[in-house]
Amino acid sequence: MKDLKINIAKKFNKIPDLWKPRVIAEMNNYQFKLAKVKDEFIWHSHDDTDEVFLVIEGLLVIYFRTHEVELRKGEMYVVPKGVEHKPYAKEECQIMLIEPKGVVNTGSKRNQFTAENDVWI
Amino acid sequence: MKDLKINIAKKFNKIPDLWKPRVIAEMNNYQFKLAKVKDEFIWHSHDDTDEVFLVIEGLLVIYFRTHEVELRKGEMYVVPKGVEHKPYAKEECQIMLIEPKGVVNTGSKRNQFTAENDVWI
Repeated sequence: MKDLKINIAKKFNKIPDLWKPRVIAEMNNYQFKLAKVKDEFIWHSHDDTDEVFLVIEGLLVIYFRTHEVELRKGEMYVVPKGVEHKPYAKEECQIMLIEPKGVVNTGSKRNQFTAENDVWI
Repeated sequence: MKDLKINIAKKFNKIPDLWKPRVIAEMNNYQFKLAKVKDEFIWHSHDDTDEVFLVIEGLLVIYFRTHEVELRKGEMYVVPKGVEHKPYAKEECQIMLIEPKGVVNTGSKRNQFTAENDVWI
Protein backbone atom coordinates (compact mmCIF):
# COMPACT_ATOMS: atom_id res chain seq x y z
CA MET A 1 0.00 0.00 0.00
CA LYS A 2 1.47 3.30 -1.06
CA ASP A 3 -0.42 5.28 1.57
CA LEU A 4 0.97 3.64 4.70
CA LYS A 5 3.66 5.26 6.73
CA ILE A 6 7.14 4.90 5.35
CA ASN A 7 10.15 4.10 7.50
CA ILE A 8 13.22 5.22 5.60
CA ALA A 9 15.74 3.02 7.43
CA LYS A 10 13.61 -0.09 6.90
CA LYS A 11 13.32 0.70 3.21
CA PHE A 12 17.10 0.96 2.92
CA ASN A 13 17.40 -2.53 4.40
CA LYS A 14 15.63 -3.81 1.30
CA ILE A 15 18.08 -2.28 -1.14
CA PRO A 16 20.79 -4.76 -2.19
CA ASP A 17 22.64 -2.79 -4.84
CA LEU A 18 24.27 0.54 -5.64
CA TRP A 19 23.09 3.46 -7.78
CA LYS A 20 19.63 2.02 -8.37
CA PRO A 21 16.99 4.43 -7.01
CA ARG A 22 13.90 2.78 -5.52
CA VAL A 23 10.64 4.69 -5.17
CA ILE A 24 9.18 4.82 -1.66
CA ALA A 25 6.50 7.49 -2.04
CA GLU A 26 4.64 9.58 -4.57
CA MET A 27 3.28 13.09 -4.04
CA ASN A 28 1.24 14.37 -6.98
CA ASN A 29 3.54 13.64 -9.91
CA TYR A 30 6.72 13.68 -7.83
CA GLN A 31 8.55 10.73 -6.37
CA PHE A 32 10.72 10.11 -3.34
CA LYS A 33 13.48 7.62 -4.10
CA LEU A 34 16.18 5.97 -2.01
CA ALA A 35 19.55 4.83 -3.27
CA LYS A 36 22.72 3.37 -1.85
CA VAL A 37 25.72 4.84 -3.60
CA LYS A 38 29.46 4.29 -3.56
CA ASP A 39 32.33 5.39 -5.79
CA GLU A 40 31.80 7.57 -8.84
CA PHE A 41 28.64 8.07 -10.81
CA ILE A 42 28.76 9.70 -14.25
CA TRP A 43 28.51 13.30 -15.34
CA HIS A 44 24.93 14.04 -16.35
CA SER A 45 22.20 16.65 -16.14
CA HIS A 46 18.43 16.75 -16.08
CA ASP A 47 17.32 19.26 -18.66
CA ASP A 48 13.72 19.59 -17.51
CA THR A 49 13.85 19.54 -13.74
CA ASP A 50 15.64 20.40 -10.55
CA GLU A 51 16.70 17.42 -8.43
CA VAL A 52 16.93 17.27 -4.65
CA PHE A 53 19.57 15.21 -2.84
CA LEU A 54 19.10 14.52 0.88
CA VAL A 55 21.77 12.50 2.67
CA ILE A 56 20.33 9.97 5.11
CA GLU A 57 23.62 8.30 6.13
CA GLY A 58 27.21 8.90 5.14
CA LEU A 59 28.97 11.52 3.07
CA LEU A 60 28.07 12.41 -0.50
CA VAL A 61 30.11 14.64 -2.74
CA ILE A 62 28.42 16.27 -5.71
CA TYR A 63 30.92 17.49 -8.26
CA PHE A 64 29.99 20.37 -10.50
CA ARG A 65 32.10 21.70 -13.36
CA THR A 66 33.20 24.67 -11.27
CA HIS A 67 33.03 23.46 -7.67
CA GLU A 68 31.96 20.62 -5.42
CA VAL A 69 29.58 20.23 -2.50
CA GLU A 70 29.97 17.88 0.45
CA LEU A 71 26.74 16.68 2.02
CA ARG A 72 26.56 14.81 5.31
CA LYS A 73 23.66 13.18 7.10
CA GLY A 74 20.83 15.66 7.44
CA GLU A 75 22.05 17.91 4.65
CA MET A 76 20.36 18.53 1.33
CA TYR A 77 21.02 20.23 -1.96
CA VAL A 78 18.93 21.28 -4.93
CA VAL A 79 20.73 20.64 -8.22
CA PRO A 80 19.19 23.13 -10.65
CA LYS A 81 17.83 21.81 -13.90
CA GLY A 82 20.32 21.61 -16.71
CA VAL A 83 23.36 21.74 -14.44
CA GLU A 84 25.92 19.00 -14.98
CA HIS A 85 26.79 17.08 -11.84
CA LYS A 86 28.57 13.90 -10.79
CA PRO A 87 27.77 12.30 -7.42
CA TYR A 88 30.56 10.48 -5.60
CA ALA A 89 30.86 8.68 -2.28
CA LYS A 90 34.13 7.32 -0.90
CA GLU A 91 32.23 4.98 1.43
CA GLU A 92 28.73 3.61 0.95
CA CYS A 93 26.23 6.38 1.45
CA GLN A 94 22.43 6.43 1.69
CA ILE A 95 20.60 9.18 -0.15
CA MET A 96 17.05 10.29 -0.84
CA LEU A 97 16.22 11.82 -4.20
CA ILE A 98 13.12 13.92 -4.79
CA GLU A 99 12.14 14.73 -8.35
CA PRO A 100 9.30 14.36 -10.84
CA LYS A 101 8.15 10.89 -11.76
CA GLY A 102 9.95 9.62 -14.85
CA VAL A 103 13.32 11.23 -14.27
CA VAL A 104 16.10 8.90 -15.38
CA ASN A 105 19.07 8.62 -13.04
CA THR A 106 21.58 9.25 -15.80
CA GLY A 107 19.69 12.19 -17.23
CA SER A 108 19.99 12.50 -20.99
CA LYS A 109 22.60 9.71 -21.16
CA ARG A 110 21.97 5.98 -21.36
CA ASN A 111 24.69 3.56 -20.29
CA GLN A 112 25.48 0.83 -17.78
CA PHE A 113 24.54 3.17 -14.92
CA THR A 114 21.05 3.78 -16.26
CA ALA A 115 18.65 2.18 -13.78
CA GLU A 116 15.16 0.88 -14.43
CA ASN A 117 12.68 3.59 -13.59
CA ASP A 118 9.68 3.59 -11.26
CA VAL A 119 10.79 0.56 -9.23
CA TRP A 120 9.04 0.59 -5.84
CA ILE A 121 10.15 -0.98 -2.61
CA MET B 1 21.65 31.95 -1.35
CA LYS B 2 19.05 29.37 -2.15
CA ASP B 3 21.49 27.08 -3.93
CA LEU B 4 23.93 26.40 -1.11
CA LYS B 5 23.80 23.21 0.85
CA ILE B 6 21.15 23.08 3.49
CA ASN B 7 21.74 21.67 6.96
CA ILE B 8 18.37 20.73 8.38
CA ALA B 9 19.39 20.79 12.06
CA LYS B 10 20.95 24.22 11.73
CA LYS B 11 17.82 25.53 10.06
CA PHE B 12 15.70 24.24 12.96
CA ASN B 13 17.89 26.20 15.36
CA LYS B 14 16.62 29.37 13.70
CA ILE B 15 12.94 28.58 14.26
CA PRO B 16 11.60 30.23 17.43
CA ASP B 17 7.92 29.38 17.21
CA LEU B 18 5.42 26.56 16.67
CA TRP B 19 3.29 25.68 13.65
CA LYS B 20 4.92 28.25 11.36
CA PRO B 21 6.50 26.49 8.39
CA ARG B 22 9.71 28.05 7.08
CA VAL B 23 10.94 27.40 3.56
CA ILE B 24 14.47 25.99 3.25
CA ALA B 25 14.56 24.91 -0.38
CA GLU B 26 12.70 25.11 -3.65
CA MET B 27 12.64 22.45 -6.38
CA ASN B 28 10.80 23.55 -9.51
CA ASN B 29 7.52 24.87 -8.07
CA TYR B 30 7.72 22.76 -4.91
CA GLN B 31 9.00 23.82 -1.52
CA PHE B 32 10.68 22.09 1.41
CA LYS B 33 9.53 23.59 4.70
CA LEU B 34 10.50 22.99 8.31
CA ALA B 35 8.22 23.46 11.31
CA LYS B 36 8.36 22.91 15.03
CA VAL B 37 5.02 21.62 16.26
CA LYS B 38 3.46 20.85 19.63
CA ASP B 39 -0.08 20.17 20.81
CA GLU B 40 -3.01 20.09 18.44
CA PHE B 41 -3.31 21.71 15.06
CA ILE B 42 -6.70 22.10 13.39
CA TRP B 43 -8.63 19.82 11.07
CA HIS B 44 -8.02 20.88 7.49
CA SER B 45 -7.38 19.57 4.01
CA HIS B 46 -5.59 20.67 0.87
CA ASP B 47 -7.98 20.31 -2.01
CA ASP B 48 -5.43 20.62 -4.80
CA THR B 49 -2.39 18.72 -3.64
CA ASP B 50 -0.91 15.85 -1.71
CA GLU B 51 1.30 16.84 1.23
CA VAL B 52 4.34 15.00 2.54
CA PHE B 53 5.24 14.89 6.24
CA LEU B 54 8.73 13.73 7.23
CA VAL B 55 9.57 13.60 10.93
CA ILE B 56 13.08 14.87 11.69
CA GLU B 57 12.89 14.66 15.50
CA GLY B 58 10.20 13.50 17.88
CA LEU B 59 6.82 11.87 17.43
CA LEU B 60 4.04 13.24 15.26
CA VAL B 61 0.50 11.90 15.20
CA ILE B 62 -1.66 12.63 12.18
CA TYR B 63 -5.33 12.13 12.91
CA PHE B 64 -7.66 11.24 10.08
CA ARG B 65 -11.42 10.95 10.37
CA THR B 66 -11.20 7.17 10.36
CA HIS B 67 -7.77 6.38 11.82
CA GLU B 68 -4.51 7.86 12.97
CA VAL B 69 -0.86 7.49 12.03
CA GLU B 70 2.14 7.76 14.36
CA LEU B 71 5.33 8.97 12.74
CA ARG B 72 8.71 8.89 14.43
CA LYS B 73 12.10 10.24 13.37
CA GLY B 74 12.91 8.97 9.90
CA GLU B 75 9.32 8.17 9.00
CA MET B 76 7.20 9.89 6.37
CA TYR B 77 3.65 9.96 5.16
CA VAL B 78 1.87 11.27 2.10
CA VAL B 79 -1.46 12.86 2.97
CA PRO B 80 -3.54 12.58 -0.20
CA LYS B 81 -5.15 15.70 -1.56
CA GLY B 82 -8.57 16.47 -0.20
CA VAL B 83 -8.18 14.25 2.86
CA GLU B 84 -8.95 15.90 6.19
CA HIS B 85 -6.17 15.60 8.75
CA LYS B 86 -5.13 17.05 12.07
CA PRO B 87 -1.48 16.89 13.16
CA TYR B 88 -0.70 16.52 16.85
CA ALA B 89 2.44 16.22 18.93
CA LYS B 90 2.46 15.58 22.65
CA GLU B 91 6.02 16.88 22.92
CA GLU B 92 7.72 19.36 20.61
CA CYS B 93 8.44 17.69 17.30
CA GLN B 94 10.42 18.76 14.23
CA ILE B 95 8.89 18.06 10.85
CA MET B 96 9.65 18.65 7.20
CA LEU B 97 6.81 19.37 4.81
CA ILE B 98 7.11 18.99 1.06
CA GLU B 99 4.39 20.43 -1.13
CA PRO B 100 3.81 22.88 -3.98
CA LYS B 101 4.72 26.51 -3.43
CA GLY B 102 1.76 28.49 -2.17
CA VAL B 103 0.11 25.82 -0.06
CA VAL B 104 -1.39 27.36 3.08
CA ASN B 105 -0.77 25.45 6.31
CA THR B 106 -4.44 25.52 7.30
CA GLY B 107 -5.68 24.49 3.87
CA SER B 108 -8.99 26.03 2.92
CA LYS B 109 -9.46 27.52 6.40
CA ARG B 110 -8.13 30.80 7.70
CA ASN B 111 -7.77 31.34 11.43
CA GLN B 112 -5.21 32.02 14.15
CA PHE B 113 -3.17 29.02 13.00
CA THR B 114 -2.80 30.32 9.45
CA ALA B 115 0.88 31.14 8.98
CA GLU B 116 2.43 33.62 6.60
CA ASN B 117 3.43 31.84 3.43
CA ASP B 118 6.76 31.62 1.61
CA VAL B 119 8.87 32.67 4.61
CA TRP B 120 12.46 31.52 4.10
CA ILE B 121 15.07 30.83 6.73
